[in-house]
Amino acid sequence: MEKRELLYEGKAKRIYATEDQEIVWVEYKDSATAFNGEKKAEIEGKGALNNGITSLLFSKLQQSGISSHFIKSISEREQLVKNVSIIPLEVVVRNIAAGSLAKRLGFPEGQLLKKPIVEFYYKDDALGDPLLTEAHINELAVASSEEVKVLRTKALQVNTVLSSFFQKIGVLLVDFKLEFGKLANGDILLADEISPDTCRLWDSETKEKFDKDVFRRDLGSLVEAYEKIYAKLKETQHV
Amino acid sequence: MEKRELLYEGKAKRIYATEDQEIVWVEYKDSATAFNGEKKAEIEGKGALNNGITSLLFSKLQQSGISSHFIKSISEREQLVKNVSIIPLEVVVRNIAAGSLAKRLGFPEGQLLKKPIVEFYYKDDALGDPLLTEAHINELAVASSEEVKVLRTKALQVNTVLSSFFQKIGVLLVDFKLEFGKLANGDILLADEISPDTCRLWDSETKEKFDKDVFRRDLGSLVEAYEKIYAKLKETQHV
Repeated sequence: MEKRELLYEGKAKRIYATEDQEIVWVEYKDSATAFNGEKKAEIEGKGALNNGITSLLFSKLQQSGISSHFIKSISEREQLVKNVSIIPLEVVVRNIAAGSLAKRLGFPEGQLLKKPIVEFYYKDDALGDPLLTEAHINELAVASSEEVKVLRTKALQVNTVLSSFFQKIGVLLVDFKLEFGKLANGDILLADEISPDTCRLWDSETKEKFDKDVFRRDLGSLVEAYEKIYAKLKETQHV
Repeated sequence: MEKRELLYEGKAKRIYATEDQEIVWVEYKDSATAFNGEKKAEIEGKGALNNGITSLLFSKLQQSGISSHFIKSISEREQLVKNVSIIPLEVVVRNIAAGSLAKRLGFPEGQLLKKPIVEFYYKDDALGDPLLTEAHINELAVASSEEVKVLRTKALQVNTVLSSFFQKIGVLLVDFKLEFGKLANGDILLADEISPDTCRLWDSETKEKFDKDVFRRDLGSLVEAYEKIYAKLKETQHV
């Protein structure tokens, strides 16, 4: 496979074309950003960690029957994925109140939710990625009501698989953000990444954070936190 | 009927007990507030105008088969209403993009929506009345899924009646906020007020504003704007 022209550069990844128009080449960057890009840093090793963790989690999901755009990891920081057109919605699943939900509802961070909550945010930096209701999604025409149902169902399936997987390694899956894309035939496929950049992951006992809140809130070394979770995840490979 | 102890004082109204515990006595204040109470003023005549307009609109709705807590107006600034326990949700119906919706979705103010949008906001000043999805409402347990359906249906019925009523007097019902309460038997009843404090009302031709945006955005005399809309509404009484 050949890496061709840059198609898109986001905050954390670059996407390149390949000779096969159904496949794109993803390169994970070492950039860390938070608060809609207001806080930024270059953190050596972050790209490799996120590529490794994402590849591992997408493989785990595949084993549980949840397919995604992921094809394979091809280097420390690169992977091949199916070429999808990303639906401009961030699909957030929450098991425990934290971050913006805790603020919105006035819940203490760490409060267990009665059942998982799925939220949709509009992927639009200029608008600050606002929370959307289904009526807003209809109005914006970014997804049909039928597609919203599919997104919600798929997101909850991912939550079931990942929550139990993380539980086995003593980690709470507090919340996470997914993105989905469409194949040329209209099929909706899980896409983007699943990494400590896009999840809140806490040690079940100590509540130590292994995720981007370490960077957002200046709680220590992001690379060390990500390395810890990656090490825990890799142990399960041999179980 | 006798006015007894003060039960509650809000930003725009005082609620008093009566000798009948199923009936409360509402007094409209002359206070104007905006931006979650950050902007304030006393505006003589506002209370009487909102009492008059609300009484007229609740009567109109009643004639169209939509009941509310409203019993009758008993003085320039006072009315009797059924004693309900207010559901802590602001139910907003929007026909045209304006205010926070225009900002949230990046729509120009004045853009006609494809169909009316119903939104729910959590009545909580400390949290800044945040937008809620149905999952949030479930988690907060402020209304059941069944009750949310009832609120949405009733809000859209009110919209149908009021939109056509305002259209007859050359006014666009851009958006409005409703509150609902529960009777002791659990029945849900339209409550609170419907006035230029809680609606956006624009002249259909000139787009002149007859609502609280006049105060929020310093566009002129609030009392004059409210008087204009009240005069238009009263004309229809004789039609």
